[in-house]
Amino acid sequence: MGASCGGGETEVNELDFIAALRDIARHPAARGLADDAAVLTIGRQKIVFTHDMLVEGVHFLPDTNPADVAWKLVAVNLSDLAAKGAKPLGVLLGFGGRNDSEWERQFLAGLKDAIAEWGVPLIGGDTVGMPQGSARCFGMTAIGEARGPIVQSRSDAQIGDYLYVTGSIGDSWAGLQLEKGMMNGSRASDYPALSDAYRRPRPLVQEGRALSGLVRAMMDISDGLLVDADRLAKASGIGIAIDLEEIPLSEPYQQLVGQERDAVLNAATGGDDYQLLFAAGCEIVLPVPATQIGRCQAGEGITLYWHGEPVAIPEKLGYLH
Amino acid sequence: MGASCGGGETEVNELDFIAALRDIARHPAARGLADDAAVLTIGRQKIVFTHDMLVEGVHFLPDTNPADVAWKLVAVNLSDLAAKGAKPLGVLLGFGGRNDSEWERQFLAGLKDAIAEWGVPLIGGDTVGMPQGSARCFGMTAIGEARGPIVQSRSDAQIGDYLYVTGSIGDSWAGLQLEKGMMNGSRASDYPALSDAYRRPRPLVQEGRALSGLVRAMMDISDGLLVDADRLAKASGIGIAIDLEEIPLSEPYQQLVGQERDAVLNAATGGDDYQLLFAAGCEIVLPVPATQIGRCQAGEGITLYWHGEPVAIPEKLGYLH
Repeated sequence: MGASCGGGETEVNELDFIAALRDIARHPAARGLADDAAVLTIGRQKIVFTHDMLVEGVHFLPDTNPADVAWKLVAVNLSDLAAKGAKPLGVLLGFGGRNDSEWERQFLAGLKDAIAEWGVPLIGGDTVGMPQGSARCFGMTAIGEARGPIVQSRSDAQIGDYLYVTGSIGDSWAGLQLEKGMMNGSRASDYPALSDAYRRPRPLVQEGRALSGLVRAMMDISDGLLVDADRLAKASGIGIAIDLEEIPLSEPYQQLVGQERDAVLNAATGGDDYQLLFAAGCEIVLPVPATQIGRCQAGEGITLYWHGEPVAIPEKLGYLH
Repeated sequence: MGASCGGGETEVNELDFIAALRDIARHPAARGLADDAAVLTIGRQKIVFTHDMLVEGVHFLPDTNPADVAWKLVAVNLSDLAAKGAKPLGVLLGFGGRNDSEWERQFLAGLKDAIAEWGVPLIGGDTVGMPQGSARCFGMTAIGEARGPIVQSRSDAQIGDYLYVTGSIGDSWAGLQLEKGMMNGSRASDYPALSDAYRRPRPLVQEGRALSGLVRAMMDISDGLLVDADRLAKASGIGIAIDLEEIPLSEPYQQLVGQERDAVLNAATGGDDYQLLFAAGCEIVLPVPATQIGRCQAGEGITLYWHGEPVAIPEKLGYLH
């Protein structure tokens, strides 16, 4: 429950509302609304469901390319399936547009690209014209089939596990800063990899499936590495120590932002990474490239280190709701 | 694809957009986006999916009781499952609110009532705060399990079938007119059955399950009896003759609006009925009360009669998109 906020604008404080929703959602499939997705048993299958929204002015800038909005809508939902190791079976689209046929044409082109890229069929949905002056509002439900009888959650990390992350962190955040012209004159076109990471995130569907069954706890990083690691720790009832200097930064990120502590903290709190964060026993041979960035220990929530020295927890761990 | 428009405001002309979506949604589960719901085969089960949106100022009036909005969101989605004879397994909520805790509290109360009424668990979703000045925007995905291996669509009515409808038609339309004060001074409180039909529609989940397997084609009436019958006829490649005088009107509807031809036409084009419309062989013994209102014949679309005399097709068959 809760999607990341690319634009950085004020979001509703959802905490009370989600607490009240949890009180309603007592079915085990809901997983206390504390996981990336719901898991229903249907026949012998475990079927995974997720629903994420993207709202204009909240999750994307009003001048964002409509094709990128559609791509991202698919990507954020498939990323939740990836975190469960689920194979995408289909998506349903909720389209709240503004009767702008050129905008819609571009949106559909991006949608077509994204569902072709991951081979997931569009199977239904709804369309509506938003009233005059309203933000565009999109929802997507993704349905996936889990690989085995046990679908890992966020809550099964154990003391002694290592904490890993796939890929590199912060590229999407840097790409957004470039889009907003907040990088001292550097342009998005000078850093295509960063811009692409923001505009065209790639859910790690294959990687999630490969890791499923091997890892103890897994989630995707949507709101920020630190806030999501903190959620994983708290859901598992453990502490997680993170070595900030181990957090993988891409070459372009290092060129643009740097590689010192503050550059790492920006990356680790930026969000929209859609990398996989997982805890696994130290004896596991990982089937996909990943970087060990910490370890699970007694305690509660995250603690941070920079080359062995304790670092104060930043006030803002990510895009908090 | 497409929900009814209770408020009567301008909707986006969705035709081109949906045509383009159809071009993308070629998977058989999508049923050409021309049915009430998508049907995926999972293991040995046929699983039914539907997603409907409700937008403030489009599908409900801004001063609508928030509990009624939540109820309706559940009801319209379960009604699509009912049309497939599917047993509800779960719902996911997309909540685009405006950070108004009293409004949210009432919405949650209505949501809780509705999911308890039909015993369908809330299993997940997303919440977001809409930007300043934007309409509230809600989406819901409902998941259901079909009763047997064949899930009836809109497209299998045959020449010679009878056309039936459950319940009474027009009550919700009359309830909306009362809410809007457009009934010559009559008040909603004077006609609680009509007001309830508008505020608290009741999806016919049990009836849909009982009819499933017996009927040839079935759909729920969301946009209006005439437009939906026309869709059923066109999807099936047949004509449907409707005897307007057979369309069932409730006592309160007759008291408030009348029972003459224009009163019937208002009922038959008003929408938001959430009754089941179905075609069945004349030999079928129906397991639920229903009224025969017409018959399937050679031709295309609907033709109308009033006591045997042909009636011109109204310009507006319902809330058209």
